Amino acid sequence: MPNVRLALAQTNPTVGDIAGNLATIWEVIVEATEKKAELLVFGEMAITGYPIEDLASRESFILEAQHGIKTLAEKLSNPQFVDLAVVIGHPALASAKERTGWAIAKNCATVIIGGKIVGTYSKHHLPNYSVFDEYRTFVPGDELLTFEHKNLRFSTIICEDIWQSGGPVAKLREAKTDVALILNGSPFEIDKDDRRLALVTELTEKYDCAAAYVNLVGGQDDLVFDGDSIIVDSHAKVIARLKQFKTDLVLIDIEAKDQLAVVGEHYLTKPNENWQTWNALVLGLKDYVQKNGFKSVVLGLSGGIDSAVCATIAADALGAINVFGVSMPSRYSSNHSKEDALDLATRGGINFQIQAIEDLVHPFESQLILEGLPAENLQARVRGIILMALSNKEGHLTLTTGNKSELAVGYSTIYGDTVGGYAPLKDVEKTLVWELARWRNAYAVSRGEIEPIPLNSIEKPPSAELKPDQVDQDSLPPYDVLDAILDAYINKRQSRAEIIASGFDETIVHKVLTLVDRAEWKRRQGAVGPKITGMAFGRDRRLPITNKYKG
Amino acid sequence: MPNVRLALAQTNPTVGDIAGNLATIWEVIVEATEKKAELLVFGEMAITGYPIEDLASRESFILEAQHGIKTLAEKLSNPQFVDLAVVIGHPALASAKERTGWAIAKNCATVIIGGKIVGTYSKHHLPNYSVFDEYRTFVPGDELLTFEHKNLRFSTIICEDIWQSGGPVAKLREAKTDVALILNGSPFEIDKDDRRLALVTELTEKYDCAAAYVNLVGGQDDLVFDGDSIIVDSHAKVIARLKQFKTDLVLIDIEAKDQLAVVGEHYLTKPNENWQTWNALVLGLKDYVQKNGFKSVVLGLSGGIDSAVCATIAADALGAINVFGVSMPSRYSSNHSKEDALDLATRGGINFQIQAIEDLVHPFESQLILEGLPAENLQARVRGIILMALSNKEGHLTLTTGNKSELAVGYSTIYGDTVGGYAPLKDVEKTLVWELARWRNAYAVSRGEIEPIPLNSIEKPPSAELKPDQVDQDSLPPYDVLDAILDAYINKRQSRAEIIASGFDETIVHKVLTLVDRAEWKRRQGAVGPKITGMAFGRDRRLPITNKYKG
Repeated sequence: MPNVRLALAQTNPTVGDIAGNLATIWEVIVEATEKKAELLVFGEMAITGYPIEDLASRESFILEAQHGIKTLAEKLSNPQFVDLAVVIGHPALASAKERTGWAIAKNCATVIIGGKIVGTYSKHHLPNYSVFDEYRTFVPGDELLTFEHKNLRFSTIICEDIWQSGGPVAKLREAKTDVALILNGSPFEIDKDDRRLALVTELTEKYDCAAAYVNLVGGQDDLVFDGDSIIVDSHAKVIARLKQFKTDLVLIDIEAKDQLAVVGEHYLTKPNENWQTWNALVLGLKDYVQKNGFKSVVLGLSGGIDSAVCATIAADALGAINVFGVSMPSRYSSNHSKEDALDLATRGGINFQIQAIEDLVHPFESQLILEGLPAENLQARVRGIILMALSNKEGHLTLTTGNKSELAVGYSTIYGDTVGGYAPLKDVEKTLVWELARWRNAYAVSRGEIEPIPLNSIEKPPSAELKPDQVDQDSLPPYDVLDAILDAYINKRQSRAEIIASGFDETIVHKVLTLVDRAEWKRRQGAVGPKITGMAFGRDRRLPITNKYKG
Repeated sequence: MPNVRLALAQTNPTVGDIAGNLATIWEVIVEATEKKAELLVFGEMAITGYPIEDLASRESFILEAQHGIKTLAEKLSNPQFVDLAVVIGHPALASAKERTGWAIAKNCATVIIGGKIVGTYSKHHLPNYSVFDEYRTFVPGDELLTFEHKNLRFSTIICEDIWQSGGPVAKLREAKTDVALILNGSPFEIDKDDRRLALVTELTEKYDCAAAYVNLVGGQDDLVFDGDSIIVDSHAKVIARLKQFKTDLVLIDIEAKDQLAVVGEHYLTKPNENWQTWNALVLGLKDYVQKNGFKSVVLGLSGGIDSAVCATIAADALGAINVFGVSMPSRYSSNHSKEDALDLATRGGINFQIQAIEDLVHPFESQLILEGLPAENLQARVRGIILMALSNKEGHLTLTTGNKSELAVGYSTIYGDTVGGYAPLKDVEKTLVWELARWRNAYAVSRGEIEPIPLNSIEKPPSAELKPDQVDQDSLPPYDVLDAILDAYINKRQSRAEIIASGFDETIVHKVLTLVDRAEWKRRQGAVGPKITGMAFGRDRRLPITNKYKG
């Protein structure tokens, strides 16, 4: 018989819904207890959801979360839980003396054994880069929490504590830790999974302990928590990884820090990168829609690749019956556009209607005497009105289908094709949109299903179709070149001189960088969408609008 | 003859325009030298503008700023400046060891005497609350910089260092400081001026030194730096305050820390609060327009108070000739609305045109079969298209005229009346809009000018006029009640229970708080506008969109 049966609980909390999250947590506790778990670990801020942003500065909110922990402990004082230890993440008020700036709370992990609160750990390293603002919202703690349970010693730490050096994590060995319990709210980024695994295995080797890394799962505004919790023994051997993009509960019998065994099914390898990216986009959309009380989405179907991919993501997330596509042809729309849009809807079983814009556009053109770019923008804005009218009338969330490359260079009409509450491709560059489309079709084939995305939408030259014979490449460099320059400028933060020196055409570099800088005001007014890279537009990249730097 | 002639230079830099800012700085150096200044102090980050946000993480940008300092020192090595000390704010790279997260730079003040760099101070207290993210962008310094010049001892500190306790500021006395030189980038907030003065006078008493507090001036996106630099002697006596909302250069002869005398004209008292608020709004708009390369603005004139105040602010900022008002009547527009809009334009000399929306709205209504709220939103969106079409066609910046109370409760049509690049009233609650309108009219009368705002626009009940006989109070509580509830919930962060306990009607409180929470997604897509309170929407208040907290 093992010393301890440990359970890792990967839950999907909703930010602010303390009662709802506690109800889910309780269901997991009951299930884990039935499966004879003796130690159950939840993710960072599992009670409140994460990140709570400036809710952290509302005293009433923090008090409600603390009350939730107290209530949980009371319920756990029932004799049936006498041998159960629960470790759970939540915020708690800092003392008046500790508070700085607007930060009044700590980011905590509390240990409850047999209904008694035996200790609370406060996160030491507060991330304040990328999408994180934890120096704004939290006060750091400085002490490791170690507790004994069933003849083994456990220490709790939280997320960023293992990404930085120093702090409580450095005391794991002197605390004679058998298993480090790491509570996380770590959002998905392409390739990030491997960095997490490396950090966890390094930690076990450095401090001679096993490590249980428990992550959240679910979409929260621009973030997608992918789960993928990990447990590793003290010899850096991976014992199990939990599901990605799904809630999960895995049990592990621990005899000693180097003797761990999974109970029941589990897996150690992960699906390929495109599968992961696709599922991040699907979960991000699904949770945004459902957690905000919507049931369905509406979007324009142009016959192009972006709207085709968005519609397919939405159908995967919500079911095709909840996706409403609208074809809005103009005098410039090619026949193949209209056909490709219908083909997409038919393949996917998506609701479809046609709203020609000619009779709506013409009165503006004649009353305001518009031609050229103002007339092009007009068409996009009339389409925006149609989508918002259908959203208002029928209760759908409007999706905006622009991709990251477009958003970068401002190749869009603000209040036109940018209208909508959620942007599924906000962090997906154009070349990746194509790659994902091909992958999704191949995935369908591999499962004996119909390919959801018309090949024509993938293969034809992209066009906004706002004037005769227009294609994107009239105004922009080829997308492979554009995406490479954008990667250098935005993701790698290279200077203009460095990008030119690396071999790109100077005129194109000047043009692209100027477009990126000038579009900042448009991006600020853009919809939220799921972050899948290390540098998403939005909270990841905070630049002034008024900015004359040309470097 | 005094020991030192000190000059305080209040400049208006543009973020990112290092060459342009240096050119202005040089003009000020020449002017100050002509006026026999021996020590010249500029504001925080005077070389780059402030705040630079994530430009701080671009190495090429920081290097360019450092190069600017070097160039400046070289120019100052000309013999004519041999006795001149210059203290100026700029960013500089931190060492590889000091860097944390994404922060690679320090927020510095460099002292140049006779062309030699004698030392650089790095800001110690990094604000990371309200609109500030300085833990994200900067690495803190920890040492006071004290230098001797013309038989007096000066120490440099930066902005937040005097708002917090501890750190280098605590060493002012042991460094035998005669005059503390405080470089600031401190944005305007109603009433904040008095807190600054209190801090500066307290500092002089605590550390027995005089203090020169130099602030920036100018608009930068959502911030307005108001200048109002201050110099106080070691007995806490205010020697001079510089102009508010204007660049300024004031010289002070310093014999000893308690013997200071202003050279030439100066003032010690400040205009009233409404004058300050109005001028903050005017400067914010003016600088946003001009620093972003626009010359003119377009806005809808409904005959209501918000558009009247916006148009008047714009005329004060840019001249009436650069303001383009558009009346966009519908079948629901009252005669007085149309008359009041024309009256406003006539009084102010603003460009005026009428674009009736009936022929543009009708085709949508019949094609999409719209009535009720979707039809109301449609009208607002058709008006948005008109304004954006005129902006595209004629190159104006579009102003969106919504006030803070509307923005709070989402009483607006997204992509309709919210369209625009700049929102002058974003942080002005409705009751203050009225107060400012009355103040502005009285100010005109006091100067023998025509009252710019029609009395009717001030006195009539506000209405969106999107359906027959509609007034705002059909959907909202009276604005004095609404604004009081919003103040409690948003500015004071009170809980629902606290607000109800303070005497407001429970049903109204629930309604208002629900509206505020639900409008978060709209606010995220809103235009930038000038912060004038301690809690502006935007960077001041960062809440999740997906958020079920009802507290």
